[in-house]
Amino acid sequence: MLKEKLNWRYATKKMDPSKTVPDEKIDAILEAISLAPTSSGLQPFEVIVVKNPETRAKLSEAAMGQQQLIEGSHVLVFAAWDNYSEERIDAVVAQMAEERGANEMLDAYYTRLKALYLPRDEQVNFEHSARQAYIALGIALTAAAFEEVDATPMEGFDPAAVDEILGLRARGLRSVLVVPLGYRQEDSDWLVNLKKVRRPRDHFVTEVA
Amino acid sequence: MLKEKLNWRYATKKMDPSKTVPDEKIDAILEAISLAPTSSGLQPFEVIVVKNPETRAKLSEAAMGQQQLIEGSHVLVFAAWDNYSEERIDAVVAQMAEERGANEMLDAYYTRLKALYLPRDEQVNFEHSARQAYIALGIALTAAAFEEVDATPMEGFDPAAVDEILGLRARGLRSVLVVPLGYRQEDSDWLVNLKKVRRPRDHFVTEVA
Repeated sequence: MLKEKLNWRYATKKMDPSKTVPDEKIDAILEAISLAPTSSGLQPFEVIVVKNPETRAKLSEAAMGQQQLIEGSHVLVFAAWDNYSEERIDAVVAQMAEERGANEMLDAYYTRLKALYLPRDEQVNFEHSARQAYIALGIALTAAAFEEVDATPMEGFDPAAVDEILGLRARGLRSVLVVPLGYRQEDSDWLVNLKKVRRPRDHFVTEVA
Repeated sequence: MLKEKLNWRYATKKMDPSKTVPDEKIDAILEAISLAPTSSGLQPFEVIVVKNPETRAKLSEAAMGQQQLIEGSHVLVFAAWDNYSEERIDAVVAQMAEERGANEMLDAYYTRLKALYLPRDEQVNFEHSARQAYIALGIALTAAAFEEVDATPMEGFDPAAVDEILGLRARGLRSVLVVPLGYRQEDSDWLVNLKKVRRPRDHFVTEVA
């Protein structure tokens, strides 16, 4: 089941501009992203959903003109926290306490976490936040496949330009992934019928008996 | 379907040491990891599967004594490439050419990629490789849930110690994630019955109309 979905998906190179992904499918993908596990449950990133064609055209310009950003109907931008902060971590703890009830173990855990994270270099914390967004990307692409929605995960863009277009830095965010969503245009996508290639299992997996 | 699986899974705190995950379930999880998308299809990491109890005990020592590494039956260690190299990238390209047929576009693409990656600082390339392993982590945890196998993704370990235990540095690898697999022991896991808490949707998702 999952395997079939993962085989169905591919990094779509040509999307059909006449088709729009329905809102309920976008919602299902966002719900899966929200359910993605993250380190200590912090979910240290946000997702910006862009529908507006003019904004998507600007994103395309910031991404070497990649057309899927225009041909798809939606773009998800994953933006990682630029740093950890006491306020951000406390907000997560407060919500956990609200939903689960306060407890000493919870407070002690996040007190230790803050002692570890807050003195660290901003770039170290950003890299850590960015990695969590990549967990969610894996789950987002899986969710899109279950919804039979095509996606093209992109790292090939100018993060500073995307941050500027979406006003991210003022919100303490930095773009790390851009993912147009839409529908493959099979008759003009060079990749759609090519075999999925993966490194041979014995180069990729080692078993320690 | 996917949503139910994502709600079922959680970072298991107590595993039942009397239960062993069957080989075919481990295989299905490894297959999903192999199918995970990665930047330019490089799959710049390896997965080490550890069954041996003595080795798992050593991994637990390197991970602040976390018991799931001992109580579970298998541990997956995700180890990212320490750097990109011409040899590593050429091996991927050679396999694509073998399976899809050689073509100029393929060669041109990876020639440009090498010109971009190979001069970069080793740490930048390692961070990029590590992020790709996190995509696969998201998919691995999803696959485990579909197999009804419990998992506890861990970053809280001493990477140098894990690298040493598994002999990773000599293979150009660096451990980034450690994931014990097993079965939850419901009567003694403090987390199993707690509500899954997520940041409110409106703090996490912004829509640009």
